Amino acid sequence: MAMAAAIRRRAEAILSANARDMAGATAHHDRLRLDEERLEGMAAAVEAVAGLPDPLSEELARWERPNGLDIARVRVPIGVIGMIYESRPNVTADAAAICVRSGNAIILRSGSEALQSSLAIHSALAEGLEDAGLPTAAVQIIPTADRDAVGILLGGLDGALDLIIPRGGRSLVERVSRDARVPVLGHLEGVCHTYVHKSADPDMAVAIVRNAKLRRVSVCGATETLLIDRAAAPRLLPLIGKALEGCELRGDPESRSITPMAKATEADWRTEYLAPVLSVRTVAGLNEAIGHIARYGTGHTEAIVASDETAAEEFLNRVDSAMVMWNASTQFADGGEFGFGAEIGIATGRLHARGPVGPEQLTTFKYVVRGTGQTRA
Amino acid sequence: MAMAAAIRRRAEAILSANARDMAGATAHHDRLRLDEERLEGMAAAVEAVAGLPDPLSEELARWERPNGLDIARVRVPIGVIGMIYESRPNVTADAAAICVRSGNAIILRSGSEALQSSLAIHSALAEGLEDAGLPTAAVQIIPTADRDAVGILLGGLDGALDLIIPRGGRSLVERVSRDARVPVLGHLEGVCHTYVHKSADPDMAVAIVRNAKLRRVSVCGATETLLIDRAAAPRLLPLIGKALEGCELRGDPESRSITPMAKATEADWRTEYLAPVLSVRTVAGLNEAIGHIARYGTGHTEAIVASDETAAEEFLNRVDSAMVMWNASTQFADGGEFGFGAEIGIATGRLHARGPVGPEQLTTFKYVVRGTGQTRA
Repeated sequence: MAMAAAIRRRAEAILSANARDMAGATAHHDRLRLDEERLEGMAAAVEAVAGLPDPLSEELARWERPNGLDIARVRVPIGVIGMIYESRPNVTADAAAICVRSGNAIILRSGSEALQSSLAIHSALAEGLEDAGLPTAAVQIIPTADRDAVGILLGGLDGALDLIIPRGGRSLVERVSRDARVPVLGHLEGVCHTYVHKSADPDMAVAIVRNAKLRRVSVCGATETLLIDRAAAPRLLPLIGKALEGCELRGDPESRSITPMAKATEADWRTEYLAPVLSVRTVAGLNEAIGHIARYGTGHTEAIVASDETAAEEFLNRVDSAMVMWNASTQFADGGEFGFGAEIGIATGRLHARGPVGPEQLTTFKYVVRGTGQTRA
Repeated sequence: MAMAAAIRRRAEAILSANARDMAGATAHHDRLRLDEERLEGMAAAVEAVAGLPDPLSEELARWERPNGLDIARVRVPIGVIGMIYESRPNVTADAAAICVRSGNAIILRSGSEALQSSLAIHSALAEGLEDAGLPTAAVQIIPTADRDAVGILLGGLDGALDLIIPRGGRSLVERVSRDARVPVLGHLEGVCHTYVHKSADPDMAVAIVRNAKLRRVSVCGATETLLIDRAAAPRLLPLIGKALEGCELRGDPESRSITPMAKATEADWRTEYLAPVLSVRTVAGLNEAIGHIARYGTGHTEAIVASDETAAEEFLNRVDSAMVMWNASTQFADGGEFGFGAEIGIATGRLHARGPVGPEQLTTFKYVVRGTGQTRA
């Protein structure tokens, strides 16, 4: 709460720092720009994180052994988290709030274009920590745009860094994943699929595909590929094509024979467009859809639209992605929509955390064993 | 159960393969050697794993969002696990059983000295899988001692490998941790501490220190350093020294002024002896003990012996190791002793799993979202 208050109190300094960033920026102007409304949104988001339940108060499990040893599994913070991000200044406040909420320390590495804004936001956050009697060292920022700093962070700071979270474009995430000497939580890309089963309700299928693709095309949960059952394609594909007006469709030969569209190449099945483009493929049924996802998916989010519950449950069970959905838009792939209150990113790796990473996912555990003098035989 | 039965059925072939390994071995004879009793123990251990609860049957959490989306967090296997281990042939059966129990596939890389034994055990396991109608490809073994195979495994098999677990000497674990392109669960070493608080019951302190150090000196949960409160040292150190007869003590000047012992060097505080050697240091109290552990510990297991509950709870809270214990021997640091039934190793990293890694720790989760046509506003 003190961090949020400090952001509001330092609004003028933050906005003037942001104006300097905007003056120097070459692109991404809208993501970079702050105004009073966005600043208020940033402060409110920090307050929302403060209002989340304390993830550290929970005892995950506790049991007694036949020899009387009392064993508890308790949540603890991960430790020191390095956050490497691009452009959006609000990530500075979000990431710091989520880490403080979960008892972690954070070292922020802002993209150079947003550095002045990030430094000004960081000053406010530090002031808030001080007001609350917490150590300001819990939230640190690398004060320079020097590119070597990223390499030093990726090296793990001689064991002091426990986790790195990259958030930004593909080249950033690739570099971090390749070079980091400490564990990384993040996602390279979200090639998300929506599969329309032959049993799908036509209106629902059209509404979900349109929303999954077009609500916001630039988010990682946006659908990039539509898979549609051969049996339903002649009926539904024209309706979907019409509902997605303004969106470029790129299809396999069968889809193109039903609705006029551009030709999809092999590369299309692997592409995260983040743009109003949708690749379309006709499949024989569930197995072929699941096979396509296994081959081309990135483990982020996939949805099935179906009235047939058995088919839907098989899809949910067999598709191996962080989030699998039935009769819902893939655009729900977001910590806020999951009820986590906030997310520091989305993870598509298989270990520790998958999907939206909120305060709870930024904890680990230890075992606490209480005895009465037991020795082992 | 079928895997265990096949081990028993193929006892002759396994023992004869083991005899070939023994004939070629240059060292580690006892760890390498199999006999009928050890083989029966191996089969029984596999049966014990079969009897463990199915970790995949559990729904970890389920909640409904205000928009009606039904979100479940469900356990799923991690995927394909690479296991790189040295010498002990029983690891072949243990690791395979734990992975099959948790729905994972495993690729085994046996140390060359035990390769013939491991291949024979693997044949039995494959036969068991086939008998049970499971795919034999779920348990694979690298059939050669070729050292390049390790490098290929560490490379991640073009994304097919999800996790590597090394189990063996320090140089093996160091190499795996350094070179692996996929996540690693394991521990480099266990420099475990037992801290005798001034409030400790003398008899309990002596019994726990003796057990923690000497029950088995070669296990990673063996205590390597004794920390003892200045206020208790003159009374307790002579008793502990006497109880640890045959164990070499290496102390700081204050300990040596109380009980005759060798001089500890800076290197001693960092050494995992795995031998009847104990480093001994006198501390001013809780803070100094915790500081010593933070500086020299390896995050494995630390214990406090104390009657003072407040001091004990502070130790349990502040010491940041996978396992922290009060009035119990550090030799309890073991999946079997924790009630996990079996362990594939002990992890001292901070992510995904800490402490004993059993079938449950070899799972991850995904989110299953069930809707009724929801689209995002």
